[in-house]
Amino acid sequence: MTRHMPMEETDHILARAESFIKEKVLPIDNDLVSMTWDKASIVLEGLRDEVRSLGLWAPQMHTEYGGLGLTHEQHGRLSGILGMSPAGHYIFNCQAPDAGNMEILHEFGTEKQKSTYLLPLVKGQIRSCFSMTEPGNAGSNPLMMDTVAVREGDEWVISGHKWFTSSADGAMFAIVMAVTDPENPNPYKRASQIIVPADTPGFQLVRNIPVMGEAGGGYFSHAEIRYDRCRVPYENILGGEGEGFAIAQSRLGPGRIHHCMRWLGICERAFDMMCSYAVQRMMSPGKPLAEKQAIQIWIAELRAEINAARMLVLDAARKIDQKGQEQARVEISIIKFYVANVLQKTLDRAIQVHGALGVTDDIILGWWYRHERAARIYDGPDETHKVRVAKEILKKYTKHSGHG
Amino acid sequence: MTRHMPMEETDHILARAESFIKEKVLPIDNDLVSMTWDKASIVLEGLRDEVRSLGLWAPQMHTEYGGLGLTHEQHGRLSGILGMSPAGHYIFNCQAPDAGNMEILHEFGTEKQKSTYLLPLVKGQIRSCFSMTEPGNAGSNPLMMDTVAVREGDEWVISGHKWFTSSADGAMFAIVMAVTDPENPNPYKRASQIIVPADTPGFQLVRNIPVMGEAGGGYFSHAEIRYDRCRVPYENILGGEGEGFAIAQSRLGPGRIHHCMRWLGICERAFDMMCSYAVQRMMSPGKPLAEKQAIQIWIAELRAEINAARMLVLDAARKIDQKGQEQARVEISIIKFYVANVLQKTLDRAIQVHGALGVTDDIILGWWYRHERAARIYDGPDETHKVRVAKEILKKYTKHSGHG
Amino acid sequence: MTRHMPMEETDHILARAESFIKEKVLPIDNDLVSMTWDKASIVLEGLRDEVRSLGLWAPQMHTEYGGLGLTHEQHGRLSGILGMSPAGHYIFNCQAPDAGNMEILHEFGTEKQKSTYLLPLVKGQIRSCFSMTEPGNAGSNPLMMDTVAVREGDEWVISGHKWFTSSADGAMFAIVMAVTDPENPNPYKRASQIIVPADTPGFQLVRNIPVMGEAGGGYFSHAEIRYDRCRVPYENILGGEGEGFAIAQSRLGPGRIHHCMRWLGICERAFDMMCSYAVQRMMSPGKPLAEKQAIQIWIAELRAEINAARMLVLDAARKIDQKGQEQARVEISIIKFYVANVLQKTLDRAIQVHGALGVTDDIILGWWYRHERAARIYDGPDETHKVRVAKEILKKYTKHSGHG
Amino acid sequence: MTRHMPMEETDHILARAESFIKEKVLPIDNDLVSMTWDKASIVLEGLRDEVRSLGLWAPQMHTEYGGLGLTHEQHGRLSGILGMSPAGHYIFNCQAPDAGNMEILHEFGTEKQKSTYLLPLVKGQIRSCFSMTEPGNAGSNPLMMDTVAVREGDEWVISGHKWFTSSADGAMFAIVMAVTDPENPNPYKRASQIIVPADTPGFQLVRNIPVMGEAGGGYFSHAEIRYDRCRVPYENILGGEGEGFAIAQSRLGPGRIHHCMRWLGICERAFDMMCSYAVQRMMSPGKPLAEKQAIQIWIAELRAEINAARMLVLDAARKIDQKGQEQARVEISIIKFYVANVLQKTLDRAIQVHGALGVTDDIILGWWYRHERAARIYDGPDETHKVRVAKEILKKYTKHSGHG
Repeated sequence: MTRHMPMEETDHILARAESFIKEKVLPIDNDLVSMTWDKASIVLEGLRDEVRSLGLWAPQMHTEYGGLGLTHEQHGRLSGILGMSPAGHYIFNCQAPDAGNMEILHEFGTEKQKSTYLLPLVKGQIRSCFSMTEPGNAGSNPLMMDTVAVREGDEWVISGHKWFTSSADGAMFAIVMAVTDPENPNPYKRASQIIVPADTPGFQLVRNIPVMGEAGGGYFSHAEIRYDRCRVPYENILGGEGEGFAIAQSRLGPGRIHHCMRWLGICERAFDMMCSYAVQRMMSPGKPLAEKQAIQIWIAELRAEINAARMLVLDAARKIDQKGQEQARVEISIIKFYVANVLQKTLDRAIQVHGALGVTDDIILGWWYRHERAARIYDGPDETHKVRVAKEILKKYTKHSGHG
Repeated sequence: MTRHMPMEETDHILARAESFIKEKVLPIDNDLVSMTWDKASIVLEGLRDEVRSLGLWAPQMHTEYGGLGLTHEQHGRLSGILGMSPAGHYIFNCQAPDAGNMEILHEFGTEKQKSTYLLPLVKGQIRSCFSMTEPGNAGSNPLMMDTVAVREGDEWVISGHKWFTSSADGAMFAIVMAVTDPENPNPYKRASQIIVPADTPGFQLVRNIPVMGEAGGGYFSHAEIRYDRCRVPYENILGGEGEGFAIAQSRLGPGRIHHCMRWLGICERAFDMMCSYAVQRMMSPGKPLAEKQAIQIWIAELRAEINAARMLVLDAARKIDQKGQEQARVEISIIKFYVANVLQKTLDRAIQVHGALGVTDDIILGWWYRHERAARIYDGPDETHKVRVAKEILKKYTKHSGHG
Repeated sequence: MTRHMPMEETDHILARAESFIKEKVLPIDNDLVSMTWDKASIVLEGLRDEVRSLGLWAPQMHTEYGGLGLTHEQHGRLSGILGMSPAGHYIFNCQAPDAGNMEILHEFGTEKQKSTYLLPLVKGQIRSCFSMTEPGNAGSNPLMMDTVAVREGDEWVISGHKWFTSSADGAMFAIVMAVTDPENPNPYKRASQIIVPADTPGFQLVRNIPVMGEAGGGYFSHAEIRYDRCRVPYENILGGEGEGFAIAQSRLGPGRIHHCMRWLGICERAFDMMCSYAVQRMMSPGKPLAEKQAIQIWIAELRAEINAARMLVLDAARKIDQKGQEQARVEISIIKFYVANVLQKTLDRAIQVHGALGVTDDIILGWWYRHERAARIYDGPDETHKVRVAKEILKKYTKHSGHG
Repeated sequence: MTRHMPMEETDHILARAESFIKEKVLPIDNDLVSMTWDKASIVLEGLRDEVRSLGLWAPQMHTEYGGLGLTHEQHGRLSGILGMSPAGHYIFNCQAPDAGNMEILHEFGTEKQKSTYLLPLVKGQIRSCFSMTEPGNAGSNPLMMDTVAVREGDEWVISGHKWFTSSADGAMFAIVMAVTDPENPNPYKRASQIIVPADTPGFQLVRNIPVMGEAGGGYFSHAEIRYDRCRVPYENILGGEGEGFAIAQSRLGPGRIHHCMRWLGICERAFDMMCSYAVQRMMSPGKPLAEKQAIQIWIAELRAEINAARMLVLDAARKIDQKGQEQARVEISIIKFYVANVLQKTLDRAIQVHGALGVTDDIILGWWYRHERAARIYDGPDETHKVRVAKEILKKYTKHSGHG
């Protein structure tokens, strides 16, 4: 259960996190993302230790497991700070996909699963991944899934083909979505989530998929995986047979919020870089770029939209805290597409202001421009969320009009 | 001074206002706006009496003057309800330009000015107007002003040419911005505000300007006025010589908030009409327009933007309440352009969903489409506010960079 | 058959038309649109006589009927000139809906129909209207139509309810779309077009529909009409029973081109007004609005889009000339939505540049802003045309992929 | 001088080029761009030989030098085909920056310069680069340049710091813009262009700049270069002292056209991929993505804008052919920003349609998404071109109004 942290304590946490991020992380993160994972992880471990000693570790995690127990709204505010760097969440141990996995292990895991998988995750000793999307099926329709888990005695035998299993490279285990009851008349009851250690025979990491020019490695990667008759104990199932969708759903709501919060951090960083550069860059002697109305108009429009995005996100987080994510479905879908678009507009304009420098890897903007193009795709493309919002809103009108 | 009304009391007021607006006003307002003012004002007086007896009269006004004493934030919420009808604010006696005039008379008026002008305004016995914009000068530069008031003995002699003096037709008096000290080295100290009764010789209402096809009349009009050596007592000056800009400024901040709040009401009405129509209108038997993805996408996008607009507006109102409008300048400018654009987009799409019906006067959308085109112009065009926001934001960056 | 007019002759016609429009029509057209039709029509008759004597009358009409016999492309160029004024096409007798009616009478009319209806139309002695849209049915689905024509002996008995029958007020006759064979298995063969003189008993012009604040009158109006058992001779049918859709289709293609061409004229006028005003309007002494980058960017963007729109329109016209409208379906749908949007963007920005003046009826922009809001609706809303274009394009891909 | 190639011959060339590109290049180009340059160049050489034997080599080059002598318009059409692949222009030897260098060597080079540099370039035996942009100075203001060339005896001594010298890695020579007459009162006369062989002592290729995640190599790279007292013979100057800007100008006009033409090829490829994928990708069994209205609307809008872009580009090319690039300045600036934006919108939507696949390097879209983000920056950012267009258009208005 989440304790109610007093406002002042939260403000204090935010202030310390912000100082740390600005002083220790922002100056080096552009170098970090161009290192190999082997090198980067050493630097990151050092920073993680500092976070531990600052008492800011695993802020989203329940206190009983060594986290700070922040509410969604509180974590939202923090996340807007961590998001200023691509490495921020990792350094605080609240990064996707581990944070989501911690959440479902905490909520649905057995004691044994918790001690084996959750505890070392919370401590930051291992990494994990979540294996749901399949190359042959549209991610926006979760009912189309070809991976199966067949029970044979005390084991599950899992066969299938997944991709965009983020951070699988080096992960200790995967949580795999697989069809366990293909004939169930309720299609939302056909799949289950099963824990598969990465050293299970048949677990083949085919490749880290090259995404926007980079295959990456370690935490910063997205794997294609084949499950070739992987055998795991029956007890590795999470939360019961047929509960796969329900658990995924419980994971996706907060997960979307976390992405949105993180994007706000990116927006603030990009906005800040844009303004800084605009006052320094001279178009002619003594005439900085910031004097151009074209730039000024972008600054004002972005400020408006980033502010709006933040308020929408915090409002949705508050609603999840107070009424649960089911009641906040419309709000969550709205921020998923709204904030993703603000993010990409902000990055695009910040790059444009930087001119040729903006497209180089000498600054960090291009990294996000590439890696967050997917923000409008993962966890449901814009269009899917928009349709969902509209259908939800139209329900009450349809009822009144006597149609449907 | 504003009393602190408990939250529940505010909610109660809002609920009663909403019922009244939905039951009594929305069903007739499209007829109202097509009547002559003579006819419309009779209907409106009846509705005003109902509001008085409901105890909802003059909600923005201080309690000592018979209002409800709402804060900016509370009035913002109410205004989002009243704005659902073009007549809402008038019926509650919190309409522009009278509300603004009440505000400055309350703050800057002498006792005599209050008893002569403020009290009957608050009671709704008279109407007033505010005469600032000039046809020959750009409204976005308040320093360009040709109207002058010259002191001759105990009188001001006012000469000038104004337009877009809204609701002058039938107003009992105008508050006129005029240059009184043209040589003052501080250009913001050159003008004063002077009360000019409409029956003053030389006060010529040239015409109600035809705006988007309608000259209108009475409250619903925008006058062109010539001040031809109008003589008024010296004591008709408001708040001191040279204080014209300062007072105008104090009036414009909240005035902009009030417009934004009202626009949110329009947005909600248009959004509601759009959804209602979409589920009723059949594209083919049994296939309502609401099933089209094109429409669904609009609904979702508008819901996101209207929600964002509301949060920005209430946030700005709260900031004015807590820190004063000077501190809320950026927020006020942001909502001025952001909400105006959401408004016009909402109206445009709501019309599009209604097809041919949407452009007829059989429904109210076209009225707003015409009369709120000016929302992106009056009280400062979008571009002016955007530039202002950017310059304010860039100040701290310029300071850091050592330029400017 | 269309003769091939040499290029130089066309250029000469265009030059004379442009001089006439600029010298005689533009200076008075804003006054014209605010007159009653009775007054306006007198002025217009005088201008029409001048056009007749200039040898520019009925440019789109075949030479054998006294027109100039321009191709679609040639007429497109001319139309871009006439469109600069709301009265341009009327003055040259190539205005909708008469031009379309002339076209179908010419192509499908009997000799008697031609002598009775076409000849006086071409001479400009009468006006006509086209009665298709119904208030209860979505215009974008032509198969939903409730108006019926039942044969009784040598007569049709027509009953139904139409609206947006433009220019019906004062028209000598209507061409009415009515279902004549409701059981035909081919739904596109159910309706016919029948000529109904306006003095036929049962022809009730219910009202000129108030559109965007104006009911208008005479040519400048859109009527709601009830056909209450109107009896007309059987021979009043146009082109055969069941041919209604086919004829409507033949009318709509070129009709859409004509609208687009006219819109380009509006764009050029608005663009010209915007630039003129921008260099004259001073923001501060010696600093015209034209120096603001915000305005400059609009000018450049609009110039790009208006140029693009013109090329798309002339290309579609050429394709109709060379290959027929069936082959030009995609191009016609593309310009219908593309140009309508350029039009509204141009008007919106031109108004914005004019500030408060822009929303007044002192200049013509607001007239178009109001009356051309429907440009994205009439003759098929944007969304309908976009879906049509996509489906046409996707056909060849579907074929290749083996689906559909 | 350009010969006038008959239309049929051009059509024949285009048809052969299209077959070649579609059959030989498109199937392998996504692999090509992920190879090292060493490997890629071997494949490319093979393809170049095929182009030579097809008689399609160096299509833009004058026939006397072994090219096809196409006009700008003809080459524009061809370029729209070659642009479908990132390697198309290189394979036909009409790639930037070599094509531009050939052009200026042809026009301004001495006989010796032509035999030494132009001939091997046309034959495809060497590569070259153009060294103008400086990291410390805004590219959009060509007058801000710090690189200098000082005459010492019969030599130029060149010192400076350049970047975004594309394809310098492996180039045989650079054409360098350097200030030779810093005190010239006419700032456009201060710089010259000088040929600097890459093996000149002091020519330091600091690095291939990592751009959007890739430093690239060989032809596919953008170098940072330091010129550290590079000494070259005086005769290496191109076209005379102080002629640097004039020559650059003559190079930039057609260069911008070439980019735009190439972008159209990218647009067509992306559009085609998008449509193909949409009909294949199933959202649910039997329900392809192509049936979604959201996708259909994108297809229609992109088709409209790509068509418009093509017409604007060909029109500008024709104008250059007929009246010279000076007369086509507005048209060139218009297409520079218009087409770049259509390009990025097309890529963005094509990626979105492909979902997760769209951001992977398994298909080519992401390569362009990354490498053509700079399209709105290089050769003048959008904003610079827009302001230029507006100022040119406003000139005649300013003249009329008596201002300026």
